[in-house]
Amino acid sequence: MSRDALLQALRDAVGEAHVLCGGDLSAWELDWRRRWRGKALAVVRPGSTAEVAAVVRACAAHGTPLVPQGGNTGMVGGGVPDASGTQVLLSLQRLNRVRALDAANLTLTVEAGMVLQAVQQAARDAGLWFPLSLAAEGSCTIGGNLATNAGGTQVLRFGNARELCLGLEVVTADGEVWDGLSGLRKDNTGYDLRHLMIGSEGTLGVITAATLKLFPQPAATMTALAATGSLAHCVALLRLARARLDAGLTGFEVMGRFALSLVEKHFPALPRPLPGAPWTVLLELADVEGEAPARARLEAVLGQALEQSLIDDAVVAGSIAQARALWHLRESIPLAQAEEGLNIKHDIALPVSAIPAFCAATDAALQHAIPGVRLVNFGHLGDGNLHYNVQAPAGGDGPAFLREREAEVNRIVYDAVAAHGGSFSAEHGVGQLKVHEMAERKPAVALALMRRIKQALDPQGLLNPGRVL
Amino acid sequence: MSRDALLQALRDAVGEAHVLCGGDLSAWELDWRRRWRGKALAVVRPGSTAEVAAVVRACAAHGTPLVPQGGNTGMVGGGVPDASGTQVLLSLQRLNRVRALDAANLTLTVEAGMVLQAVQQAARDAGLWFPLSLAAEGSCTIGGNLATNAGGTQVLRFGNARELCLGLEVVTADGEVWDGLSGLRKDNTGYDLRHLMIGSEGTLGVITAATLKLFPQPAATMTALAATGSLAHCVALLRLARARLDAGLTGFEVMGRFALSLVEKHFPALPRPLPGAPWTVLLELADVEGEAPARARLEAVLGQALEQSLIDDAVVAGSIAQARALWHLRESIPLAQAEEGLNIKHDIALPVSAIPAFCAATDAALQHAIPGVRLVNFGHLGDGNLHYNVQAPAGGDGPAFLREREAEVNRIVYDAVAAHGGSFSAEHGVGQLKVHEMAERKPAVALALMRRIKQALDPQGLLNPGRVL
Repeated sequence: MSRDALLQALRDAVGEAHVLCGGDLSAWELDWRRRWRGKALAVVRPGSTAEVAAVVRACAAHGTPLVPQGGNTGMVGGGVPDASGTQVLLSLQRLNRVRALDAANLTLTVEAGMVLQAVQQAARDAGLWFPLSLAAEGSCTIGGNLATNAGGTQVLRFGNARELCLGLEVVTADGEVWDGLSGLRKDNTGYDLRHLMIGSEGTLGVITAATLKLFPQPAATMTALAATGSLAHCVALLRLARARLDAGLTGFEVMGRFALSLVEKHFPALPRPLPGAPWTVLLELADVEGEAPARARLEAVLGQALEQSLIDDAVVAGSIAQARALWHLRESIPLAQAEEGLNIKHDIALPVSAIPAFCAATDAALQHAIPGVRLVNFGHLGDGNLHYNVQAPAGGDGPAFLREREAEVNRIVYDAVAAHGGSFSAEHGVGQLKVHEMAERKPAVALALMRRIKQALDPQGLLNPGRVL
Repeated sequence: MSRDALLQALRDAVGEAHVLCGGDLSAWELDWRRRWRGKALAVVRPGSTAEVAAVVRACAAHGTPLVPQGGNTGMVGGGVPDASGTQVLLSLQRLNRVRALDAANLTLTVEAGMVLQAVQQAARDAGLWFPLSLAAEGSCTIGGNLATNAGGTQVLRFGNARELCLGLEVVTADGEVWDGLSGLRKDNTGYDLRHLMIGSEGTLGVITAATLKLFPQPAATMTALAATGSLAHCVALLRLARARLDAGLTGFEVMGRFALSLVEKHFPALPRPLPGAPWTVLLELADVEGEAPARARLEAVLGQALEQSLIDDAVVAGSIAQARALWHLRESIPLAQAEEGLNIKHDIALPVSAIPAFCAATDAALQHAIPGVRLVNFGHLGDGNLHYNVQAPAGGDGPAFLREREAEVNRIVYDAVAAHGGSFSAEHGVGQLKVHEMAERKPAVALALMRRIKQALDPQGLLNPGRVL
């Protein structure tokens, strides 16, 4: 009865066609990595902010929990319902319009369900640049990017998703609309609700629209690979490159030898410059002046790094196609490791200065615990963000390794992360996957403050329950 | 009795020498602009985070309100006690040590009471740059800068104070210490307490230390003045300069003719290039390559602006002394207007694109209401932040003008700000001065969320009561 009344209220809110209860709902109930399969009470697809608010009010009136979802590309199970069949899946995908573009103010206001690539394209169509970029950009939504404070490949220069957002529109747990859309670079009028909502993974409110920062398009982008002998040399190269290129340095990715060997093994057709280096760095320079000065600047930095023996060799891409091929190498690592078999993934952040010591200590601790274990170590070194993934010894059984060793491996890795001043979730968030790490590893004072805030803004606990806290 | 018991508890917490009750306490009780004179129950000067926590616990146990204070340079009365004699003034000035500098991670951890200039110097001593810069930097403290989310002259490139902070240490309303110091660029583990505390003006917690972002020092800085005929041309020049210089453009200040005429009148010894222009723009370029390329780049932009008739004339500083003289012109406006007599000040933000229309409409509305009124209009155009100050007609009586016309002028200005999508406080905050504007002009949904957060984190309402909300 109560379920029927809720369904009727949802149908009244969004129209019958947009309340889905039967058939194959796995596009919303199953995460893309197929790690969590839930069962929704219903999938509801509102088409406007007012409809989102009506859905939230209906759920609040019935005491029914809500799970907001964007493109369903999350890594931590934050956007799929649990298996109870009691949670409403609130899909934001139909909120996908550009609301406003203000070129003189360098801002773009879009709805939450707009796919990231479409947001990038809207900026490009105006001769401008929205720099947020990540592997899932063809299907993730900007609302999800903000709810999870997404990272990606341009963080070094532009910051995480939160730094690219000036204002939000949010539906509160009461089903009210907070209109915090704003094209202002400065606004010191009270608490920063925007930053509180960003990264809260849908547990404090439902983001329905956002005003984003845009940037001038660079005149040229230049990409290079450099081979180094150690992580310490990578860190020294980063320091040199930042000092010489400043904000022009837009990418600084690092790839360990074993990670690249998997690309070589599983995608043998890919070109592989600088083979065999212990560490390979991908550098990207965005330049306002043009291709020739960009190349000269990047070559000068690499030349100085060679002279100082920070690197052993380097190549600068000679064309856009070559630059894409270098990025393709980097982006093929996740696929190549998947071909090699399941592994135990860690999305960790550390102070950049602590990375060499962290890796030395943790590699050794893992080898000691599991002789022959292999490390797929790569990531955004410029941001101190490693994807430090632990693969079974050669010939091992991936699923069994994951099943039997995950807890032990996680403990070794996260203990070392904590000892080096790091974080157990750099850019993927907490979701369901790391909710136990939160409870165990976050300082008690921080957890208590977060719980008070959750209680204050969602006293019924209906927004994405069981996630984050 | 209860007061005596509290004073004893405070003396036990910080030592007798650091609890001040008698004598001239105006250094803490009177704001630097002499607009608010309060009376403290006591001035307490803890020397460590543990002592701050003990002070907060003692006040909480006695139900006594606390007013945190840094360098007492605020513009909105946020850091001085009220006149009741019942509030403890908590001065953070003795917490003034550098805790750590990590050059490879580009981070600096300092205590809240460190003066901004000393923070800048600590970075410089390591060959690095902490770019936060504002007029009060010789006496304001970094804790106050963060509590108020200070702006200043480098926001265009580096953002407000919040964008320069990676982590905080905060004493909560319960007197617990939240250790959120962090050198991480990425950390998606729960709600962003840092951004919630930053800009909350001491009403949610007491900031005791912070980890700050550092940057490489630029190889050269180049400064120019340009004369334009209209604000629309200033906005077009900004767009051109951003497209051509990107992150190299670190300053873009605008000065109206009347504002500069006051400098000329009251400081006739200052050199005054490009006299008589309706609008004068100060541009600053920070360059990683050196002086000659920096000059060439800035001249190229100004040349293009001349060709496009965006500007009528320009000068590029030929030496560091000349560059300082140009900045000195800009920085003399607040003093020159003070010489001219009291005026009605507004620290407002607008979308950059809305500034020409806002000024046209508001100038006209003010002239209509007060014929002959004069506008001291200047500010950080690159951030959409104007100091839009309204001066009595020539020969008028400043104090009487302020007394009689402030409410009317504020209503005209803030109504126009709201109509153009702006904010009534860009960088100065709310404090006591704008607490009525908050109640009146902030959307009800936002206010309700903020009040719930305040109630959740400071249920007794003892942290800086009467400020912000």
